[in-house]
This record gives sequence, C-alpha cells and structure tokens, in this order.
Amino acid sequence: MKRTEISSLGEFGLIRHLTDCIQLKNSGTLKGVGDDAAVIALSDGMKALVTTDMLLEGIHFDLTYTPLKHLGYKCAVVNFSDIYAMNGTPRQLTVSIGVSARFSVEDIEQIYQGIFAACDTYGVDLVGGDTSASLTGLCLSLTCIGEAREEEIVYRDGAKPTDLICVSGDLGAAYMGLQLLEREKAVYKGETDFSPDFAGHEYILERQLKPEARKDIIEKLRHAGIQLTAMMDISDGLSSELLHIAHASKVGIRIYDDKLPIDYQTAAMAEEFNMNLSTAALNGGEDYELLFTVPLSRLDDIQQIEGIHLIGHITNEADGNVLVTRDGTEITLVAQGWNTAQALNE
Amino acid sequence: MKRTEISSLGEFGLIRHLTDCIQLKNSGTLKGVGDDAAVIALSDGMKALVTTDMLLEGIHFDLTYTPLKHLGYKCAVVNFSDIYAMNGTPRQLTVSIGVSARFSVEDIEQIYQGIFAACDTYGVDLVGGDTSASLTGLCLSLTCIGEAREEEIVYRDGAKPTDLICVSGDLGAAYMGLQLLEREKAVYKGETDFSPDFAGHEYILERQLKPEARKDIIEKLRHAGIQLTAMMDISDGLSSELLHIAHASKVGIRIYDDKLPIDYQTAAMAEEFNMNLSTAALNGGEDYELLFTVPLSRLDDIQQIEGIHLIGHITNEADGNVLVTRDGTEITLVAQGWNTAQALNE
Repeated sequence: MKRTEISSLGEFGLIRHLTDCIQLKNSGTLKGVGDDAAVIALSDGMKALVTTDMLLEGIHFDLTYTPLKHLGYKCAVVNFSDIYAMNGTPRQLTVSIGVSARFSVEDIEQIYQGIFAACDTYGVDLVGGDTSASLTGLCLSLTCIGEAREEEIVYRDGAKPTDLICVSGDLGAAYMGLQLLEREKAVYKGETDFSPDFAGHEYILERQLKPEARKDIIEKLRHAGIQLTAMMDISDGLSSELLHIAHASKVGIRIYDDKLPIDYQTAAMAEEFNMNLSTAALNGGEDYELLFTVPLSRLDDIQQIEGIHLIGHITNEADGNVLVTRDGTEITLVAQGWNTAQALNE
Repeated sequence: MKRTEISSLGEFGLIRHLTDCIQLKNSGTLKGVGDDAAVIALSDGMKALVTTDMLLEGIHFDLTYTPLKHLGYKCAVVNFSDIYAMNGTPRQLTVSIGVSARFSVEDIEQIYQGIFAACDTYGVDLVGGDTSASLTGLCLSLTCIGEAREEEIVYRDGAKPTDLICVSGDLGAAYMGLQLLEREKAVYKGETDFSPDFAGHEYILERQLKPEARKDIIEKLRHAGIQLTAMMDISDGLSSELLHIAHASKVGIRIYDDKLPIDYQTAAMAEEFNMNLSTAALNGGEDYELLFTVPLSRLDDIQQIEGIHLIGHITNEADGNVLVTRDGTEITLVAQGWNTAQALNE
C-alpha cells in the first residue's frame, strides 16, 4: 500500500485532505469543519446532548488485530451509543486524533473512512476536530452532540420499584471476541502476518471489532410509545451499569442469571476458554447494548418488541442489588469492569 | 505531597472524586457530569458553537517546566479562545484525560483545579468527559460548546478589500517564553530540582504557561457595536492565521512589520537569543490573541479601544499576501507554524 508521510501534507493539508469530502447531512449544522468552532442550530424545544470518549492505543485497542477502519467506525459508534442511551439522536461529531510518525496518511485515511462510514450509517455530521502529532501511540478523542426533546430524555435516575429491567440484543460476545483475538495474538507472537482462521467465530469478532449502536431499538420503543424510566448503554459491563442505575435512582436491582441473553458463539467460546459464561455476560463490557427500565404496566408492549429481553426488575433500595442464579441462590452484584480494572492497574 | 494511586479509586471513583464539587453556572446546562451525555438547552435564536483541542505530552507541553494546574488552565482557555474567535460565549466543556501510572490522583486533581479555575474565570460549566489509563504520557482532549446569536457569529470568510486588519494584545511572547523554558531545561538536564531564576521574564513565561482568552476584547467590541467581518484566534502564529483568512475570504493581505505589537520582554529575550523579532511575532504561535478585520469606516471606533492594534489592511486576492518591512521591502507571507512543523516532523 502507498505510504504518504504526514509531514508531506502538514497539519492543515492533512485536515483538508481528510475532510474535503464531507457533505453535511443535518440542516441544523450551520458550519462544520473549517473555522474555530462548528455552529449548530437547535430547533425549538430541542435540547443538545453532549458525550465524549477517548480511545488510547494499548488500552482500548490493539492494532495487531484491529483494522484501522474498524477502529474509526467503533470509536464513532460508541459515542452515538451514548446519545441513544439518553433517548436522543446523534447529530454532530468532532474527532481529535494524535498520531506518531509510524502512521502514514493512508493509515489515517483508513480511520476516517471508518468514522465516515459510521456517520453515514447513523446520519451524523463530522463538524470539526484536531489533528496532532503524538510521540507514542495512536490517540483518538471524539465528542458527539445529539438532540432530544426535553420531555423525552431518559436519565439514569428515574427507575422505580417494580419497573422491569430490559436489555437489547445479547451480552458478553464482544468480550469473548476479545479473548479470542488475544489468544491468537499470543500464538502469532513475533510473526508479522497475523491471519488466523476465525471461521465460526464471525459474530463475536464483529461484536468486538465493529459494534453497532442500537438506533433500531430506540426507534422501536418510540414507535411503540413506551416511555422509559431509566436507560444506559452497556459499555463497562451489565453489572457496572446496573449499579449506576441503582445508585442514581436510589433503588435495588434483582436480575436472573437464566434470563441473561447470550449468543451461542459466545457460549461456545466461553466453554472453550473454560470461562464462566455469566461472568462474561455480566462483566464483559463493550456490548453497546441498551439497558433500560420500563413501568410494569408496559410488560405486554415490551414483550412484543423483538430483540428486547426482560432480565429482572427494580426493587427497593434496602433490598440491595441481587443476581439470582439458576439454582435460586442470591448473589450480590458487584462491578468488575475488566476494561477499567485492567487499564488502571497497569 | 500525598500520593494516592489512581487504582485505589478506580475510574468511576476518580471521576466522582474530581467532579463532585461542580456547581453549574449556566441555566441552559440541564444536566452535566453523571449520565451518558450532558444536556444543553439553547434559548431561541441562539446557535451552538463547538470546538475541540487535543494536547499531548511531549508535543504540546513538557511537564519538566509546566505545572499541572497551569496545564489544566491553559487547555481549557485555548478552547474558550476558539469560541470567542467566533464572537461567541463559551458555556460548556467536556474533558477527556488519559493518564499513565506515573500520575497520582493528586496530579490529576492539579490538572482539574486548573480547568476549574479557567471555568470559573470564564463562566463555563464542566459537563462531562472521560478518564482513562494511558500506557505512555498524559493526553488531554477538551471540547467546548459555546453559544452565539446567528447574526453575530464571525467566520473567517467575510474579509473584504479595504477592511482593516487588527490584532489584540501583543505577539511572540508565548514563543519567547517557550524558548526560555527550553533553554533552562537544557541547563538543568538531569537535575530533578528545576528552579531557575526567571526574574524579569515573568510576562513571557505567563504568556506561555498561563495564557488568557480575550473575552475582554470581545466585550469591548460588542459594547462599541463594531461588527467584525472575519476573525480567528492566533494559536499557530499570525502568518498562518492571516493566510487562513486570505484563503477563506478570497482576498489579499497587506501588513506592516513596524505595526506588529511586541512587548519589551519579548524583544529583550529575542535579542538575547539573537532571534529575529518579527519572525517570533509572525510565526511564534500560542499567542491566543484575536486577529480580526473590520470595515474601514470603523477606523475611529477601533482606534479608541485600548489593546487593539491596526497592523494592515485587506487587499484584492490578486495582490497576494504581503508583509511590508521597515525599509519598505515587500515580502510574501508564508506560514511557518513552528508548533505544527516541529510536531509533525518528529
């Protein structure tokens, strides 16, 4: 592949090169890339939502097995996921990127292609950013602005006792995909050509490398007219997010092990690794599924929406946060976000 | 100084620890830190402005001589400066920070104290962010949301021939401050106690380590009812910014060397370093002063505002971009953003 040194374009040349093709999608985006700041108009009654995520090489991603385009796609999607988790719609995105000399212009183009692909899929405008040299690895920091009607925004603190606890999709797959990638990386250690046979594991790899935000679920819930009482996206792991909702809403949690939705590829991989499947589903993280609560009165409506799973219900704060195992044992839920624990202890 | 390991708090503990004290200042900030995204309401007719900056250790700052609190202050201020440069008012800020294990909780507190101090000075709400481990150095990425009435926003592309070119404050001081710090760092190489005698150089050091955004100038211009035709803040150097305005507005530039505002400490330091003073003023960067154009008809009004200097005027595009030296020679303006060139060639 052609390799153009970044220094041959310079910072402004690089930014122009990367952003020349941007066509703004939202009428509210009055000004995108190319000035000191982007300009966003919000229509009456609409509120702006802002979220930001930083991804650092060696902590959040490993370029041994992460294609740069997938990386770009993922880092955009995780921001969109945060906006959907407020019941909003992502509209604008800024991208800051720090790159060391080992990256070429083509490398950065790959990252941007992934970001643009995500922006296209989710109808978001890239409106600005910052490109900088880095002395070390690759550093990505994205900020997404979304919008929502004030009365429709769903926070973490509205869950009430008897509310149903729901999750979209399935859990633990991204984590098992990561375990597989890490194992193959160890096998290939030292070899430059990293091309293991991943047949039969496509789903868990895609969940790790190219996650999607659950725009579809948000749209179905809106279509069904179901007002949620609390919502988060699952980035650090189900347990961790449940405890956030419990803490913010001052309630207790009661979920059932046998209700956790798990794909068969996830289960097969956990078996192969001799790992506890529930642990992967509870603490794996990076699922980017939606975790939300709805009033018990909407049970029938929720059950009619494909892709949504009831995993338990909200209790009084005094009842604590409990996982009921398959044999009926009650275990106190604890957060073990592997991502955090691993990263911060290094 | 007390040293608390970050791992003793964990990521969420750390975020809570750092953001517990936040009191929101803007009624439009409906929700700050603590959910998936911040929520911002804009009043009728107001537009949102968004800007983002990433600062990486070893590229944008050197912790040998940069106190962490100053670093936090500066990285917030450079974002506010971008919003003022659109003639807007900064309102909300998100902060993403990547830290390696060599930083303690107290270190990060210092950075946040600086950010909070800047937020207090400029009336901005810190509304969210991301805290992550880093395998290498310190990485800061900030995004600022501002607001402005649509008709008051000043872009880069509105400069017209005969418009006056103005800058606030003085130029080149931050660059000379950096040269001084780098020289002293070289002198102290290897010694842990970095405490040179900086007497007589306070101004240029402050310009480098603790710059301010020119909120005051924006307010004076508004008070005087002067509508600007183009504006930028000077972060990469006067020449670079002038060429941006020329390019965006499709005009030519004519500025005069003897009109460039330079402080005597800057001049003295340039003399000591045997450096060309105009080069420092034109290409130094990190001034965070405002560069703007106004119609010739407002000459009298502009001259009555303290702290604003006329440095030239806008010409036709065909006349090119010209610096007139003290002896009347015309030199073509070229951008030599030292920051960029230095960073991207490493």
